[in-house]
Amino acid sequence: MNAGVARQGNRIFATGREARLAVRNGIHRGQTAGIAPGFVQANLAILPKALADDFFRFCQFNPKPCPLLAASEPGDPRLPTLGEDIDIRTDIPLYRVWKNGEPVAEVPDLKDVWRDDLVAFLIGCSFSFEEALVEDGIPLRHIDDGTNVPMYRTSIQTQPAGPFRGPLVVSMRPLKPADAIRAVQITSRFPSVHGAPVHIGKPEMIGIANIMKPDYGDPVVVKDDELPVFWACGVTPQSVIAAVKPEFSITHAPGHMLVTDLRNSRLAVL
Amino acid sequence: MNAGVARQGNRIFATGREARLAVRNGIHRGQTAGIAPGFVQANLAILPKALADDFFRFCQFNPKPCPLLAASEPGDPRLPTLGEDIDIRTDIPLYRVWKNGEPVAEVPDLKDVWRDDLVAFLIGCSFSFEEALVEDGIPLRHIDDGTNVPMYRTSIQTQPAGPFRGPLVVSMRPLKPADAIRAVQITSRFPSVHGAPVHIGKPEMIGIANIMKPDYGDPVVVKDDELPVFWACGVTPQSVIAAVKPEFSITHAPGHMLVTDLRNSRLAVL
Repeated sequence: MNAGVARQGNRIFATGREARLAVRNGIHRGQTAGIAPGFVQANLAILPKALADDFFRFCQFNPKPCPLLAASEPGDPRLPTLGEDIDIRTDIPLYRVWKNGEPVAEVPDLKDVWRDDLVAFLIGCSFSFEEALVEDGIPLRHIDDGTNVPMYRTSIQTQPAGPFRGPLVVSMRPLKPADAIRAVQITSRFPSVHGAPVHIGKPEMIGIANIMKPDYGDPVVVKDDELPVFWACGVTPQSVIAAVKPEFSITHAPGHMLVTDLRNSRLAVL
Repeated sequence: MNAGVARQGNRIFATGREARLAVRNGIHRGQTAGIAPGFVQANLAILPKALADDFFRFCQFNPKPCPLLAASEPGDPRLPTLGEDIDIRTDIPLYRVWKNGEPVAEVPDLKDVWRDDLVAFLIGCSFSFEEALVEDGIPLRHIDDGTNVPMYRTSIQTQPAGPFRGPLVVSMRPLKPADAIRAVQITSRFPSVHGAPVHIGKPEMIGIANIMKPDYGDPVVVKDDELPVFWACGVTPQSVIAAVKPEFSITHAPGHMLVTDLRNSRLAVL
């Protein structure tokens, strides 16, 4: 889930690797928003090999909600392109284990549940583009409110791959019109973390009946001088996986992401 | 004015230079929209040297409505950076001559009115970005309707320079939300022809009381599934000059632009 918020009192680490080692060693146990400013954080989905090929195709077909940063080899917990020493079994503060589409446990590591057929998918997260927006001076209400970004299932369907199919989930940030234009410019530079908005204004056009009733996260006020701006959201793959009800899968617990060695600024294509 | 529309029956020329020579030789006498696809067209403002320095600063202070492509030396009709053989006295199909802020004549050339103290300003025009939008498959209603783009005086003030001051004039194109996002991306690449929109949705926020009553050009319908998207407009400098009431000035007649040797695609900064 790409909607965590920085918790008060979180320690700040100078690099992604320092943050990750603090997670691995049990020093950091909470949400990860803001713990390593400038470093890319990633959504996690782990699936058995039997489903992994179709999910890989699903990500390729749906790059805006599912921008794949890296995928592991089956059974291999390493992700060398995201950080030399990453062990996906230990480097996230809290995991959610799913059986047949239902969450059955939240665990601080995967030592007891890891299998040789598991493939880890790491998917870009809105934290990266939110950092770029905030650095540009664009206020983001859910951050100012200290809440999770509001997210909505839409009437837009993803492109199916094998059993994976379902509605696009979007996150919404209310912006003044000039900031909305600037936000399109900024987030267009970051296709690997959802990229440009998919919709602006007019929530009813994408099947959102009540902007104050998000399907995930917390509501935020859209003021009269603001437009709701919608981005494809990393909750989409979680929602799609849950609908398939795999016999076994693992995700990060909401807000507890993998902190990588990649710098947000290096994700910019321009 | 950057709001001409392609006239039926206009001859199409292969290059800007061919179009310009046809104008110079009296072969082409009408509006210029679409007569040399791919080549940059420019708005014209000619002022006496006594006002030129302030106007030059005005353009620099207000690059979105007044993106200056070139300015001549006083009394020199050439514009070598826009085309090797340009003579600004003969290369526009129809000129409008102004005295004390009032139009007093429309003439096919400036041979009788040219003065040694005149400075020609050539300002980027929305034709260039409209061509990029249409090539991307984004429909533009005023083009489909065969009308002039609607333009509005706004409550946004330009940055004054000397006597030059006044409201920003914007052009409006109704777009579906996804096309509006794409249009921000495309036009951001073209800062020398007005660049990204200045506003989107919510016309009342920029002082537009009735979207169906433009101050210049023709109204177009904004459908329920569309947002009005507003760009800074090259009518702004004309409006600002008219308010100063210079003892003598010259502009192109609406829709009758200078066709240059520059290619629209070469204006893209990315």
